[in-house]
Amino acid sequence: MPRRIVIIGAHAAGMDTASAARKTDRTAEITLIADEKYVGYSRCGLPFVLGGQIPSFQSLIVFPPAFFQMMKLDLKTETKVTSINTANKTVETTDKAGKTENIPYDSLIIATGASPFTPPIKGKEKQGIHSLRTLEDGEKIDKAIKKGAKTAIVMGAGLIGLETAIALHERGLKVTVVELLPQILPAMLDADMAKMVQEMLQQKGIGILTGKGVEEFLGAEKVIGIVAGGEHFNADLFISAFGVKANTQLAVNAGITLGETKCIKTNAKMETNVKDVYAVGDCTESIHIVTQKPTVAQFGTVAVRQGKVAGINAAGGYALFTGVLGSAVSRLFDTDVGVTGLTEFFAQKAGIETVTGTIASKTKADYYPGALPIKVKLVVEKESQRIIGAQIIGGEEVTQRINAISFAIQKQMTVRELAKADTAYAPPLCETWEPLVLAAEMVLMKLR
Amino acid sequence: MPRRIVIIGAHAAGMDTASAARKTDRTAEITLIADEKYVGYSRCGLPFVLGGQIPSFQSLIVFPPAFFQMMKLDLKTETKVTSINTANKTVETTDKAGKTENIPYDSLIIATGASPFTPPIKGKEKQGIHSLRTLEDGEKIDKAIKKGAKTAIVMGAGLIGLETAIALHERGLKVTVVELLPQILPAMLDADMAKMVQEMLQQKGIGILTGKGVEEFLGAEKVIGIVAGGEHFNADLFISAFGVKANTQLAVNAGITLGETKCIKTNAKMETNVKDVYAVGDCTESIHIVTQKPTVAQFGTVAVRQGKVAGINAAGGYALFTGVLGSAVSRLFDTDVGVTGLTEFFAQKAGIETVTGTIASKTKADYYPGALPIKVKLVVEKESQRIIGAQIIGGEEVTQRINAISFAIQKQMTVRELAKADTAYAPPLCETWEPLVLAAEMVLMKLR
Repeated sequence: MPRRIVIIGAHAAGMDTASAARKTDRTAEITLIADEKYVGYSRCGLPFVLGGQIPSFQSLIVFPPAFFQMMKLDLKTETKVTSINTANKTVETTDKAGKTENIPYDSLIIATGASPFTPPIKGKEKQGIHSLRTLEDGEKIDKAIKKGAKTAIVMGAGLIGLETAIALHERGLKVTVVELLPQILPAMLDADMAKMVQEMLQQKGIGILTGKGVEEFLGAEKVIGIVAGGEHFNADLFISAFGVKANTQLAVNAGITLGETKCIKTNAKMETNVKDVYAVGDCTESIHIVTQKPTVAQFGTVAVRQGKVAGINAAGGYALFTGVLGSAVSRLFDTDVGVTGLTEFFAQKAGIETVTGTIASKTKADYYPGALPIKVKLVVEKESQRIIGAQIIGGEEVTQRINAISFAIQKQMTVRELAKADTAYAPPLCETWEPLVLAAEMVLMKLR
Repeated sequence: MPRRIVIIGAHAAGMDTASAARKTDRTAEITLIADEKYVGYSRCGLPFVLGGQIPSFQSLIVFPPAFFQMMKLDLKTETKVTSINTANKTVETTDKAGKTENIPYDSLIIATGASPFTPPIKGKEKQGIHSLRTLEDGEKIDKAIKKGAKTAIVMGAGLIGLETAIALHERGLKVTVVELLPQILPAMLDADMAKMVQEMLQQKGIGILTGKGVEEFLGAEKVIGIVAGGEHFNADLFISAFGVKANTQLAVNAGITLGETKCIKTNAKMETNVKDVYAVGDCTESIHIVTQKPTVAQFGTVAVRQGKVAGINAAGGYALFTGVLGSAVSRLFDTDVGVTGLTEFFAQKAGIETVTGTIASKTKADYYPGALPIKVKLVVEKESQRIIGAQIIGGEEVTQRINAISFAIQKQMTVRELAKADTAYAPPLCETWEPLVLAAEMVLMKLR
């Protein structure tokens, strides 16, 4: 009898699980169950459809029906998994017609993702508070803009908040971002680096209010304004970008253990505490490569990496997930912002004694027209002199500098080794002395 | 008495030696001796002035007179060092007026560079064969174009040859590149990767003839054509880009030992076999990090790294040079071409059993407008599964991918580790599955 693999969720994590499972076992019966109408699309692309760079929301569908056919994947959309029975090894589903079904599995993968989260603020039940998580969310915001929204308030200055704010700005809205913490991008950048990005965004015309918590949603049935930091702000459109919360209820109800991060706990094979049940993606916690402690890394890259490992194991293969560094990058207007490993703030919070080095340089030879500014901050563990993090803000080639430092951290490169590294150079492409190397030199000067 | 540091040469290697020496010893007397009129400029920028991207040759002067003043460096231009007396610790110089002088040193640094080399071809003594090594070379070619040259033949399809060919093409000349070997960029790319670049160049309108050695220069006093592969080719302008040869005669005359590569041999402190005499830059050989054997790496990045080490040591400090990987990159029209470590060809030549993986991907999410093609070839040592080289051809972010693999090679990352690496992603900046990771997967499939 063929192996029955059931996957709950059909986005990045679920899809890569299915692909890996299919490649490992050509004869398995693989079923994906999704409560959404649209599956296999890129959530990360949503702000760029809103902003107009990508022509339509449908363009984001990375896995079209033909893919499911080719890979022989059975897909059930608009179908909710109502419970998991780990003793019988079945999941109970209800489709949109209300029809229930019990689906048996040999291996089950939970890829239930995360959902936008609005804190318990007075008036949060009122209508007109949008989030940007699903394709339908994007369509609703798009409709509101087309109906004539002229002003927007984005609540939360994380990556999704800022990317959405820029998209709305590019659609001609006057946008204000409200953030509880004293800086933008608090999960990604230290305050000194975040300040640069904030100033850039303000220069481009985005209003940013930090250190202001949202205290109330104003309006009768529909929100027409907010109170934040004691002040009133009115707008036509409200975006909730406070953050997301892992969807774990189904797992918890089935007796699956959560970790200290309140996401599903797994081992390196992506197995939960229940035999033959795996968890991957935004609902799952990861081990941080530097701290070796559980962390929440809700990124597309982590989802696909975990999915691949779970898919291989669930289909009878063997693969281990090696942990995360929280590498992330975004393009905010013309500026790329990236991070890998620990920020100085989070390193200190983890009890690590750090030395940092920050430099400003250029992306091309100084004399080459069009050289763009770039700023690098390196975070180094003082005693071992090992690199444990980097933040980079610049006009180009930030992503791969982040990847380069990610590799360095994973291979325990010391800041001294980085200062001596062999790098490539050409006037139109970089400076003779690579900015990463110069940042390493800055750290070494402090270590002397 | 202050330490007397004498540096022969005042370009990348010499200048970075001087800077490092000054930072190490604030009171040293530092003298730079150069036979050229212009010093401290970027040779790598010359093709881009010719091509019109950079406004003037003078723009390439990275170290202006103010720098020498600020750093208290004594500079003698248009002055030739005629001999080194290692017993007395002096160098004998002749300036352009013919005046000779004996300059004493406590530490001497030889940064005599390399010179363009034309093989012993019949008629090579004729006029009108240009090379592109010095600022004056560039000015001469520029003058020839302005006088109305309409066609050019570039002899040699290395980086300098191709960059010059593109510059001439951008100035409106019909350009043909002639290369003895069966492929372009033979020192940088394997034949399979070089073919892609060659096709791109040909599509852009550059004529390329591989496997054709130049057999004769035709013309009376001035060259008007060449014979290559038995055929006649006429042109208005002839560029010799066969390669460069280390300037070692001065060192050899002083009893300084050359290595097996015929460049000056040094230890990791950049010391030659003669006490207190160092060598750096294009005249010096390096140890390859993968093979641990001597190699010739005549790159600006290597020159400055070696200069820094020699400058520190010559001024009484302590620093070691950690070797080279031959990391290099160039922008050819809109395509970036990069390499680090060994190509498959050179790995096999070094007796290393290899497995390679090559993939074609894109530089942005597939659905994001403007995604450019990128091709990655990874070279892996079969037994250890360690990455030992990479070649990348793509529309953007090639340079930092090369640096990322350079770091990986230096830290002995295995291809399996690369396949599991934590990378950063955003739709406008890269694909979810990083091309480097996909290339690693390709290698793993072959290793299974």
